[in-house]
Amino acid sequence: MSTDGPGAGAAVIESAVIEAAMRRALAASDGAHGTTSPNPAVGCVVLDRAGEVVGTGATAPPGGPHAERAALAEAGARAAGGTAVVTLEPCNHTGRTAPCVDGLLEAGVARVYAALADPNPAAAGGLDRLRGAGVDVTLGTLAEEVARGPLRGWLHRQRTGRPHVTWKVATTLDGRVAAADGSSRWITGPQARGEVHDLRRRMDAIVAGTGTVLADDPALTARHPDGTLRDHQPLRVVVGNRDVPAGARLHTAGVAPALHLRTRDPAEVLADLARRDVVDLLLEGGPTLAGAFVAAGAVDRVLVHLAPALLGAGPHALRDAGVGTIADIVRLQVDEVRRAGTDILIDAVVDDAGPVARPAR
Amino acid sequence: MSTDGPGAGAAVIESAVIEAAMRRALAASDGAHGTTSPNPAVGCVVLDRAGEVVGTGATAPPGGPHAERAALAEAGARAAGGTAVVTLEPCNHTGRTAPCVDGLLEAGVARVYAALADPNPAAAGGLDRLRGAGVDVTLGTLAEEVARGPLRGWLHRQRTGRPHVTWKVATTLDGRVAAADGSSRWITGPQARGEVHDLRRRMDAIVAGTGTVLADDPALTARHPDGTLRDHQPLRVVVGNRDVPAGARLHTAGVAPALHLRTRDPAEVLADLARRDVVDLLLEGGPTLAGAFVAAGAVDRVLVHLAPALLGAGPHALRDAGVGTIADIVRLQVDEVRRAGTDILIDAVVDDAGPVARPAR
Repeated sequence: MSTDGPGAGAAVIESAVIEAAMRRALAASDGAHGTTSPNPAVGCVVLDRAGEVVGTGATAPPGGPHAERAALAEAGARAAGGTAVVTLEPCNHTGRTAPCVDGLLEAGVARVYAALADPNPAAAGGLDRLRGAGVDVTLGTLAEEVARGPLRGWLHRQRTGRPHVTWKVATTLDGRVAAADGSSRWITGPQARGEVHDLRRRMDAIVAGTGTVLADDPALTARHPDGTLRDHQPLRVVVGNRDVPAGARLHTAGVAPALHLRTRDPAEVLADLARRDVVDLLLEGGPTLAGAFVAAGAVDRVLVHLAPALLGAGPHALRDAGVGTIADIVRLQVDEVRRAGTDILIDAVVDDAGPVARPAR
Repeated sequence: MSTDGPGAGAAVIESAVIEAAMRRALAASDGAHGTTSPNPAVGCVVLDRAGEVVGTGATAPPGGPHAERAALAEAGARAAGGTAVVTLEPCNHTGRTAPCVDGLLEAGVARVYAALADPNPAAAGGLDRLRGAGVDVTLGTLAEEVARGPLRGWLHRQRTGRPHVTWKVATTLDGRVAAADGSSRWITGPQARGEVHDLRRRMDAIVAGTGTVLADDPALTARHPDGTLRDHQPLRVVVGNRDVPAGARLHTAGVAPALHLRTRDPAEVLADLARRDVVDLLLEGGPTLAGAFVAAGAVDRVLVHLAPALLGAGPHALRDAGVGTIADIVRLQVDEVRRAGTDILIDAVVDDAGPVARPAR
């Protein structure tokens, strides 16, 4: 209750305030997710000397300002002596924009809290430079939470050189993705289906096999609940050797033309898409293509939209994943389980936590 | 904050106290679940005039005292002028024991709160008789919560004449119950597997098909974590026309001999087990038998122990459930989703809520 002991006073901001600012920065970065590749979707919040939020920013599309610049611009002179809270270490290199570290120093920011270190050698060193200039630097605030957010795919790509692959599947309790006659509309309810579009708009690319395209004729666009297109559309990718008819919805969806990769090899697909700056890739089907990706060790995250329903026949969620016996089962870790309307959403990840995704705190 | 307004004073007990007592009664009944059939597993808590708990009871095995008698015996003279909180309407008929209503009146209980009315015409009328004797009676306290508890199977049997069937299955995210080579130990982790034994001890019977018995050689007993047998063991039932070898664990498990019903017809199985006073039945496998039960409309609840893992090949959780197209999908309602160790437990029910299961409140 003391107001004059060590750590008290306006110049010191409580950790709860910093954490709230980090969550605000994380939310800001989520809004930019899907529009920044190959750059990371970063969020930044600037607090004034008293700990009040005076600026919030997220990474703009390539060539535009980074999150720190956007937040500092909003804060203006109130950033002086204040605090910057940012999801990723501020960059220290000149690319299409000037280093964010320069911006923070010019604004006179006194403290910087970063969740994660930048694993990219060309951009790293920002925190060291800030420390050298007398800024009070803290690394690791909400690191795990941030690493599971919009930066996950980017961190993965920095670490592995390939896109981060999320396999999304809508299934019954008994693992079926369609009935015996092939009908599948709809297994899940409207809320879960709506969340698919929230997911798509965060992605750089959506991949489906020719089998799924020929069977279901999906548009693979990110739409609003009223069916209109969202501002950001991921690159739509068809994988496989069969032709897609000119009249397919994939060709008439009113967005950029879909890409057809005439291969079923996940490594070839990922190498091609990496060259196109794809960071976050959503694999939407079908079972055979998903099986090939799982067998290749190329699925990093599985999002199951699980309908509380039974079919007892029909195609399965996954085929031929290269597992013949229980000892070779592909184990994941549950990141989140929650309800979505009448359905259940399960977010499970391959445990690939390395020093980049989980920095020292 | 007033202590002398309407509703204040020692004679009136707050609804929060009554609800806490009902939850305590429900917990007591859960301890008896599986040991009372064909009688319902009821719980009762007696509060003294001041609202203090002075007695807790649950239904004893057939022939022993009902929950009210047990709670009143513990309360003794402190029940006079007090309150009985009971999960089911006190019985008004003389079977192997005297009517519970007599016990409550003799003890001088002033108020009775019951969650659910007794749908059994022979036993009902208890609340009316209590009212007629000047007892303050309230029906419906936590009715939905209680109806989902240990009484669920008994209510179902009162309504339908057949046992309540829970299908339990341990599956991967892609709906497989074993790998391609048939190996399945273990798909789920130790916590989920331990909960199976908690479930079994609540059941009157466990049913498995001869295919599962021949393939997996299960004991189908309810065991403690150290492998020793629990006090209560459900009747173990094998269904199907193939013989079970004399050396099968089913025959050497150290409990009452298993019953072998040489049929695959769910209606025949249920009729036979109903005659044996089975109320709560656990269906544990395999996919073909489960499919027959689903196709017959004879599955009331599905408990999925879902491992965050992928197989991509191997037998499925459910086969041949009589569904050919998506319009005929068997829809359930999710009652509960939670984590169990590294796994996910999903409790889903067929929506059969009728006036018995959901009384007016």
